Amino acid sequence: MNPVRMAMIGGGPGSFMGPVHRRAASLDGLVRLVAGAFSPDEARNRLAAEEAGIPAARSSTDAIALLDREAALPEDERAELVSIVAPNHVHAEVAAAALKRGFALFCEKPLARDIAEAREVVELATSQPGRVAMAYTYQGYPMVHEARALVAAGTIGDLRRVSASYTQGWLAERAEQHGNAQAAWRTDPARSGSSGCFGDIGVHAQTMIEFLSGEPIAEVMADIQVAVPGRRLDDDGGLLLRMTGGARGTLVASQVCAGEQNRFEVTLFGSKGSLRWAQEQPTQIVFTDAAGRATIVSANPAMMIDPAARAALRLPGGHPEGYIEALANLYRAFAWRLRGLGECPLPLPGIDRGLSSLAFIEAVLESSRTRGWVAVKS
Amino acid sequence: MNPVRMAMIGGGPGSFMGPVHRRAASLDGLVRLVAGAFSPDEARNRLAAEEAGIPAARSSTDAIALLDREAALPEDERAELVSIVAPNHVHAEVAAAALKRGFALFCEKPLARDIAEAREVVELATSQPGRVAMAYTYQGYPMVHEARALVAAGTIGDLRRVSASYTQGWLAERAEQHGNAQAAWRTDPARSGSSGCFGDIGVHAQTMIEFLSGEPIAEVMADIQVAVPGRRLDDDGGLLLRMTGGARGTLVASQVCAGEQNRFEVTLFGSKGSLRWAQEQPTQIVFTDAAGRATIVSANPAMMIDPAARAALRLPGGHPEGYIEALANLYRAFAWRLRGLGECPLPLPGIDRGLSSLAFIEAVLESSRTRGWVAVKS
Amino acid sequence: MNPVRMAMIGGGPGSFMGPVHRRAASLDGLVRLVAGAFSPDEARNRLAAEEAGIPAARSSTDAIALLDREAALPEDERAELVSIVAPNHVHAEVAAAALKRGFALFCEKPLARDIAEAREVVELATSQPGRVAMAYTYQGYPMVHEARALVAAGTIGDLRRVSASYTQGWLAERAEQHGNAQAAWRTDPARSGSSGCFGDIGVHAQTMIEFLSGEPIAEVMADIQVAVPGRRLDDDGGLLLRMTGGARGTLVASQVCAGEQNRFEVTLFGSKGSLRWAQEQPTQIVFTDAAGRATIVSANPAMMIDPAARAALRLPGGHPEGYIEALANLYRAFAWRLRGLGECPLPLPGIDRGLSSLAFIEAVLESSRTRGWVAVKS
Amino acid sequence: MNPVRMAMIGGGPGSFMGPVHRRAASLDGLVRLVAGAFSPDEARNRLAAEEAGIPAARSSTDAIALLDREAALPEDERAELVSIVAPNHVHAEVAAAALKRGFALFCEKPLARDIAEAREVVELATSQPGRVAMAYTYQGYPMVHEARALVAAGTIGDLRRVSASYTQGWLAERAEQHGNAQAAWRTDPARSGSSGCFGDIGVHAQTMIEFLSGEPIAEVMADIQVAVPGRRLDDDGGLLLRMTGGARGTLVASQVCAGEQNRFEVTLFGSKGSLRWAQEQPTQIVFTDAAGRATIVSANPAMMIDPAARAALRLPGGHPEGYIEALANLYRAFAWRLRGLGECPLPLPGIDRGLSSLAFIEAVLESSRTRGWVAVKS
Repeated sequence: MNPVRMAMIGGGPGSFMGPVHRRAASLDGLVRLVAGAFSPDEARNRLAAEEAGIPAARSSTDAIALLDREAALPEDERAELVSIVAPNHVHAEVAAAALKRGFALFCEKPLARDIAEAREVVELATSQPGRVAMAYTYQGYPMVHEARALVAAGTIGDLRRVSASYTQGWLAERAEQHGNAQAAWRTDPARSGSSGCFGDIGVHAQTMIEFLSGEPIAEVMADIQVAVPGRRLDDDGGLLLRMTGGARGTLVASQVCAGEQNRFEVTLFGSKGSLRWAQEQPTQIVFTDAAGRATIVSANPAMMIDPAARAALRLPGGHPEGYIEALANLYRAFAWRLRGLGECPLPLPGIDRGLSSLAFIEAVLESSRTRGWVAVKS
Repeated sequence: MNPVRMAMIGGGPGSFMGPVHRRAASLDGLVRLVAGAFSPDEARNRLAAEEAGIPAARSSTDAIALLDREAALPEDERAELVSIVAPNHVHAEVAAAALKRGFALFCEKPLARDIAEAREVVELATSQPGRVAMAYTYQGYPMVHEARALVAAGTIGDLRRVSASYTQGWLAERAEQHGNAQAAWRTDPARSGSSGCFGDIGVHAQTMIEFLSGEPIAEVMADIQVAVPGRRLDDDGGLLLRMTGGARGTLVASQVCAGEQNRFEVTLFGSKGSLRWAQEQPTQIVFTDAAGRATIVSANPAMMIDPAARAALRLPGGHPEGYIEALANLYRAFAWRLRGLGECPLPLPGIDRGLSSLAFIEAVLESSRTRGWVAVKS
Repeated sequence: MNPVRMAMIGGGPGSFMGPVHRRAASLDGLVRLVAGAFSPDEARNRLAAEEAGIPAARSSTDAIALLDREAALPEDERAELVSIVAPNHVHAEVAAAALKRGFALFCEKPLARDIAEAREVVELATSQPGRVAMAYTYQGYPMVHEARALVAAGTIGDLRRVSASYTQGWLAERAEQHGNAQAAWRTDPARSGSSGCFGDIGVHAQTMIEFLSGEPIAEVMADIQVAVPGRRLDDDGGLLLRMTGGARGTLVASQVCAGEQNRFEVTLFGSKGSLRWAQEQPTQIVFTDAAGRATIVSANPAMMIDPAARAALRLPGGHPEGYIEALANLYRAFAWRLRGLGECPLPLPGIDRGLSSLAFIEAVLESSRTRGWVAVKS
Repeated sequence: MNPVRMAMIGGGPGSFMGPVHRRAASLDGLVRLVAGAFSPDEARNRLAAEEAGIPAARSSTDAIALLDREAALPEDERAELVSIVAPNHVHAEVAAAALKRGFALFCEKPLARDIAEAREVVELATSQPGRVAMAYTYQGYPMVHEARALVAAGTIGDLRRVSASYTQGWLAERAEQHGNAQAAWRTDPARSGSSGCFGDIGVHAQTMIEFLSGEPIAEVMADIQVAVPGRRLDDDGGLLLRMTGGARGTLVASQVCAGEQNRFEVTLFGSKGSLRWAQEQPTQIVFTDAAGRATIVSANPAMMIDPAARAALRLPGGHPEGYIEALANLYRAFAWRLRGLGECPLPLPGIDRGLSSLAFIEAVLESSRTRGWVAVKS
């Protein structure tokens, strides 16, 4: 297969997601980085382009200018896919520009800083079905798909309760004041959007709950806070939730729990058993049956029921795959779709997912402000 | 030491806690069962008495009658301590009767079915300091005391977030309709009280949070439910909470999560690290420092800082002690106190603890009903 | 049931196993300590007797004298069971004396310091079937019996490989020179016997392998050592083994692995799966099927197939039982047998077990000395 | 940096290691596949070349012919590095041919089918220092380097005992007779060499022990077998070992333990503590100190002492990296060296490592045959 040509927006020196996306895109040889607006800073952009082997002609400090230039190249040469890994305030504008110019779009979450800002890109995406995917990396883990398949197969019976917890400690102190670029923009409302912690990681928990259960969160009762004085965006919070189907749940997201690395754990409890998945041990899920027997299902085709999850594995059982491989699974699925190899069985998060995260954040903020239950708009 | 003479109320055939209390009381040879009103049923009471080697003269189907009879015995012969393990509706009345007759009291939680019912026993207890202890078994685990000591020593810094989850599955179906005596009375408002799941296990989570952190829960926002149709008391729920010191938290209690055995887990997150304890592996706590290093501290004096916790161990490290030993630690502490061997360093839950659980339940019920935040009366 | 009356030999102040046996014996109310020769030292013996509530008339510094005295008491008053928990050099002589006087015998391992010393007691035991049990505490864990039942049911197919490892660190330095009484006698050939570490804990690993697999170890190739200079008995070693049925294995025992508490772990690998059990988490076994699914079976009747293992539980699933409960299971089984309540389904280690441990030690010592394979006499 | 141009030998359709090497080589953009002799079969070779985007001119079914052709290309165009991932019987000849033609060499283990066969390549390698690396993938895991650094820093004190166990189940039945190509060549003496299981995975255990401890294995006492009847090479075995420094150990390797995936676990026990690493959770090591405190050190610079290990991480703590990333670390280190970016601090396994594995296998086979201890030639 001829690799999909990709332009990257953002991801210059110091970026967390830039190198992850570059590695993930290249892992299977299905996507090739050919252009980039890696940084608005001239020197930093040049450095990134050189490291990536991108000629100056296909690099720019101005994302829109780059898209214009790429669109003007011959069809078999220009970038086909635009991957946005820049800070949040850039997402919506560049996403819309990319779609208008006919590029396929792979956009880091969030889609925009808020729902209003997302309107144009949603309209554009709606008119071009299948051309937009959102980089919810955790949706690329094979065992997440296996878990969803097990739930869908009735393994845990009727869903009764959901517990999701995503705790980090990297903002336990005011890292944004000590030269941490990641912390700086993520705690800045202008660049990050209306929410800090919930916009950054709370939405992963929301997405995982909805993906695994197959049903949306209907309403939330939230209590979010700024735990570290002086910060302007939430860095910690918890909420009660009710699923559309009636199950209840709790969701915690925090970036101020000192010592926590990237502990993202979800459990679904049902009338016949439960399923647990934890991001720090992503190659396994624990299914507990009604008698209490806990079975560890690991990333090995011999134990798995979901064809998509099995197909997403690159290695035999017992050979760990991780975070980069998860994101690479999303790139692979998108590349297959763009090359018309038939829809990849691994479902790819789309524009609706980006939108529902924004609706979730809005409900969380309103609930916390009003100290009451708020329905999540869908 | 001359063993403390004990009369037991409740705990007849089919009881869960009866045999546990008998074993725990006898484990260290410090308490001796000498009398009992094990069951209101004649035959069942006789059977229990015989199994325990209690002569008919010191057994009765009527708890109050037994207390009267014991009180009439010579001082060096009669029971000194009354242990109540009967269903909840019996607690307050018998507790008050015991205190009035001069017995020391060891009472299973809850103290009463609600605050109103507890009034008399609270008054009696207040006038006899140190004569009442509540059987919050989990407060007898040595590592719980070690965890509290670590928190008090500042190991995790300022408390920011608390997560407590207590999930069981034994009421996942309507066991109360299929001959399960435990399920029958626990789901019956007349015998159990105003709450089912939260009265039974939610209060353990409340107690643990307050004990480990050293501060009370200030307010709650709850969402409790009857998950299994037809039941009359809550069997599942979650809540948001705020500690007096400002930390936030979540608390989940459920008895309808199929396959869960007795998964009671608590984590305290602070500005310098976190501590986790899980009842199903009670001999260890996990401390994570700010750098993310997770240290497993296990039940071994060589690793522990709390003298009370160390003293509560009966075995060298690596030799597991469990639930019966935890309860035995409470009996031992009470026996030492009653024999005047000086106050045992292991703090014993008192009448205030029983009362604060009732206040907690009241707040949870009101919050869930009104769908709003409710302060917990202290 | 009328409790079995027991005399204890050894177990005075500073003893490890003495208090464990007393607690285990009393846990279920089936055995009552009525006499004891707790220590050859007058003051220490008196102290132990007083703590246990034993009158002076039924206590002695001289074990044989005590047995004589007990034997002279009326049949319904005298001890029925003699429990030997003294250091090893006392075992054989007292055991023989007890059997000669008609007492049932519960003897800590080893049976004797070596096979020659065991001869008399073996003969006596053989002529009184069912009157001797050996206190291999780990054989009292319910999940060990469940594991054996699973193996016997063919769950793992044909046995191919066995791994047993028992590592401790309490002798990592010369504790015997710093007032540790346990270390002192266990490292002294005169009191401990021909082997140190293998006699103390290696035989537990041997016993567990043979019990779980249902077949004896046929031959061994050992490499044992004195790791801490100056010590006179082995404190560390490993061996290769071949089972009678042809499976191969390794067995490690060490008391000089600093920081190890009581890590005793056994895995049986077969043609259809494997089973693991670890003493520090004794309430579970892990079964892995041929596809690699690891199932955690825990101490809960709902998941267990072995009636004896289920019957040995005192608590519902999720309420941990530990080391004392394991030993109590052996006492309970013996009490049932002595009271004629029918043979307890939980198999009780007998004199043959004690003898096979001695044969194992002999083979290990010879193999290590000759640097060659040695058959284990059976 | 200009990527290193690589030719791959072997790795055609159905290969396990081929795609792993291709992904690992490309992950960081430092190595580019430009040529290949993927398979001796015409059609299969063509398919592999097409998938990899290799033009026909730079692909061949004949490895030597390909090397000749590459050597004839202009210096700035031809492959610089030859990566051998073909079955074992191909290694030595192709390796020697590559070195003779001036290519750098990255060779899958084993170096050859036996020591005799390795002679020429060893001589060639010796005369070209730094031009040969062996693909011991597990040496690419950052936490393995961190563990070695901790041992070297004296964290566990003097080494006393080593336990290594590498168990798999994929050969539990005769997969080689049911179309499993991997099984077919690995159980065939002509293609695999003198040993099956020990040559395939036992050497990983040897290498890990020697790498972590920093000292060679001095002698072995082995017991290896063909567990599945009809097979011609060992598929299971265990051995006792003595380290040069005097520590003792056990090493188990098996491919017939049904259900085992890739369980490769190593523990080093010392006079001050122990260290454990397990391949199936490669991002952590467990250090236990002399008091028994077990600390989990995970792949996060904030907890690590080894600069090389820290530098080898691509992601922040809590974002799992796996097997492909480990191998990519070796490629990266080699690429840095070849580009003269200074020696990468991550030590790269060299020709000596390949040779010592062959010496180890020879000793294991002789020991098992003679049933006695055998020194490992170094």
